[in-house]
Amino acid sequence: MRTDPRGSARTPGTATGGETVPTVPPASKAADAVDVTALLERGRTLATPVLRAAVDRLAPPMDTVAAYHFGWIDAQGNPADGDGGKAVRPALAVLSAEVTGAAPEVGVPGAVAVELVHNFSLLHDDLMDGDEQRRHRDTVWKVHGPAQAILVGDALFALANEVLLELGTVEAGRATRRLTAATRALIDGQAQDISYEHRDRVSVAECLEMEGNKTGALIASASSIGAVLGGADERTADTLETYGHHLGLAFQAVDDLLGIWGDPESTGKQTWSDLRQRKKSLPVVAALAAGGPASERLGEILAADAKSSDFENFSEEEFAARAALIEEAGGREWTAEEARRQHTIAIEALDTVDMPDRVRDRFAALADFVVVRKR
Amino acid sequence: MRTDPRGSARTPGTATGGETVPTVPPASKAADAVDVTALLERGRTLATPVLRAAVDRLAPPMDTVAAYHFGWIDAQGNPADGDGGKAVRPALAVLSAEVTGAAPEVGVPGAVAVELVHNFSLLHDDLMDGDEQRRHRDTVWKVHGPAQAILVGDALFALANEVLLELGTVEAGRATRRLTAATRALIDGQAQDISYEHRDRVSVAECLEMEGNKTGALIASASSIGAVLGGADERTADTLETYGHHLGLAFQAVDDLLGIWGDPESTGKQTWSDLRQRKKSLPVVAALAAGGPASERLGEILAADAKSSDFENFSEEEFAARAALIEEAGGREWTAEEARRQHTIAIEALDTVDMPDRVRDRFAALADFVVVRKR
Repeated sequence: MRTDPRGSARTPGTATGGETVPTVPPASKAADAVDVTALLERGRTLATPVLRAAVDRLAPPMDTVAAYHFGWIDAQGNPADGDGGKAVRPALAVLSAEVTGAAPEVGVPGAVAVELVHNFSLLHDDLMDGDEQRRHRDTVWKVHGPAQAILVGDALFALANEVLLELGTVEAGRATRRLTAATRALIDGQAQDISYEHRDRVSVAECLEMEGNKTGALIASASSIGAVLGGADERTADTLETYGHHLGLAFQAVDDLLGIWGDPESTGKQTWSDLRQRKKSLPVVAALAAGGPASERLGEILAADAKSSDFENFSEEEFAARAALIEEAGGREWTAEEARRQHTIAIEALDTVDMPDRVRDRFAALADFVVVRKR
Repeated sequence: MRTDPRGSARTPGTATGGETVPTVPPASKAADAVDVTALLERGRTLATPVLRAAVDRLAPPMDTVAAYHFGWIDAQGNPADGDGGKAVRPALAVLSAEVTGAAPEVGVPGAVAVELVHNFSLLHDDLMDGDEQRRHRDTVWKVHGPAQAILVGDALFALANEVLLELGTVEAGRATRRLTAATRALIDGQAQDISYEHRDRVSVAECLEMEGNKTGALIASASSIGAVLGGADERTADTLETYGHHLGLAFQAVDDLLGIWGDPESTGKQTWSDLRQRKKSLPVVAALAAGGPASERLGEILAADAKSSDFENFSEEEFAARAALIEEAGGREWTAEEARRQHTIAIEALDTVDMPDRVRDRFAALADFVVVRKR
């Protein structure tokens, strides 16, 4: 019996305008039998108390600002039970410890460090991008001001290193080094994202490179950090990173689909969210690169939009028309296919490294979940 | 024969309005004979090529933005020979390697990491504080925009960890852990500095705590990081940190004096710079805490200034009058005395740890230099 209504790889998602997310065959029968909800819950349950204790170390008012960002309190400082996100990264981090035969708990400092780096980047990116909403709430810079967003982001980044390095082991040094490389890639990806905003055209290859940096690198780190802390050799760690990198690309492709066609009820974002923000996401760049009448028409419209002073006031119908053109040009199907392609590469990577079958099935099930999710 | 025109502990500094910096007796005859200019130059010469190579690893346009920040190119991208600062930190880092009998080169990755963290904090602080000028040039956020200041700051912070951790040694892990703790203190100090701006009164103790975090922690790290990389034991590293922490407090006390009474020709700042920015620096808080007629009058004036909409247009004479009141209330002499006090504690710490006399004399000479400098 399945207990996870979201995690079935056999049930394609549906949302505004039809199926949003790609249908993938489950990686295996065994993977399909994994209780993904329980796996995500395990990561969250193990990591959250340690994450909260780490954040509690911050000096006021940074502790409060960080607690607001994580959804633990509201803007007035009252306790809140915010949406902490899907928690895919902590689930991966504690699972990866089991690759080495270690207990999932061994991966916890890694899970916490990855979450701290992830949230450092969210705090800074939201400010740089001027995004006013995240997870259904006002962003930190909007509530507490730009200085606090910068400062608390910096503090979370430092805290990530602290949580790992205070373990004082050789493995912790290796884990920090790998996480640092991922963080640099994350920053490179944000630099690319910003520079693309000012350009008329971005190639599919450039978009994939940016997404590999911005999303792939940290999910790669999450997928291997527990194993590194458990003493895995370099080859095992590298292979788990490969799994995570491609899983991250699949994740981002699905995110890009949800960013246009996602159901606002599920995603917590506006309808046509990425179109409203003129994001050059995968469906858009793939549609523009496809050629043909719909692609050319889309190119003309987006070029005119870029100069339009009235863009803010566009109607639902105007965004829907753009989304329809992207779909007609093949951008939607190409992106869904890209998610399936990356999902396959991720699953294949798992077969090249020794690990208990039970652990492999769980990695595969998390990959299935990432591709079929609706939020 | 002395070859250093700036470094003599016997020559007190003079600037606008009389002597700016405290006179200290040199720590020792041997210290007084050290060529401080050559010592600073050595740190700079060893660290700069490695620093530039590290910055060159950044993806465009972050490499260019960072090169502008460090003064290697101008705003148009042409090569420049900017003022790289006094380079006290790199000099301390390579010197500290010699405590363990290692070559100064062993301290170079530490010197570079400390410089990267220092400049990460400058990039972010200038943006948070809205400071438009640094080292006689427009700040990065002013030239390249706020997003680049955030992003390149983040990248320099990550690069600092990378430069250390790619050494792959146990010592590098220890050094990174200590540097991370210093970085957290730095961030705490900036948080305190920001919160104090919104308050009417700040106590001397609070100001010293803030300055210990904002300046003391990283100079402490610079003073010990080379020794840690050279394999020093924890006690030696802690003692060198104690030296550096108090040297940092002396450094900041002198900075606070120069921030009010410094010669603009030497400091590269405006006259009465800190007063124009309403900084609650040591001379100000000490004067306000002193009591007596001048102290009370100063308190009234500064309270009125805080509400004045015309503050930006105040004349030289108005700032000079405030500076005179701070001096009359004893804030200037108290701060000079504080610099001497911290200098003494720093020098005393050196005596509690084993190191070659030649190395001890150089640490003492750098402490003398920090206290008598005019910029």
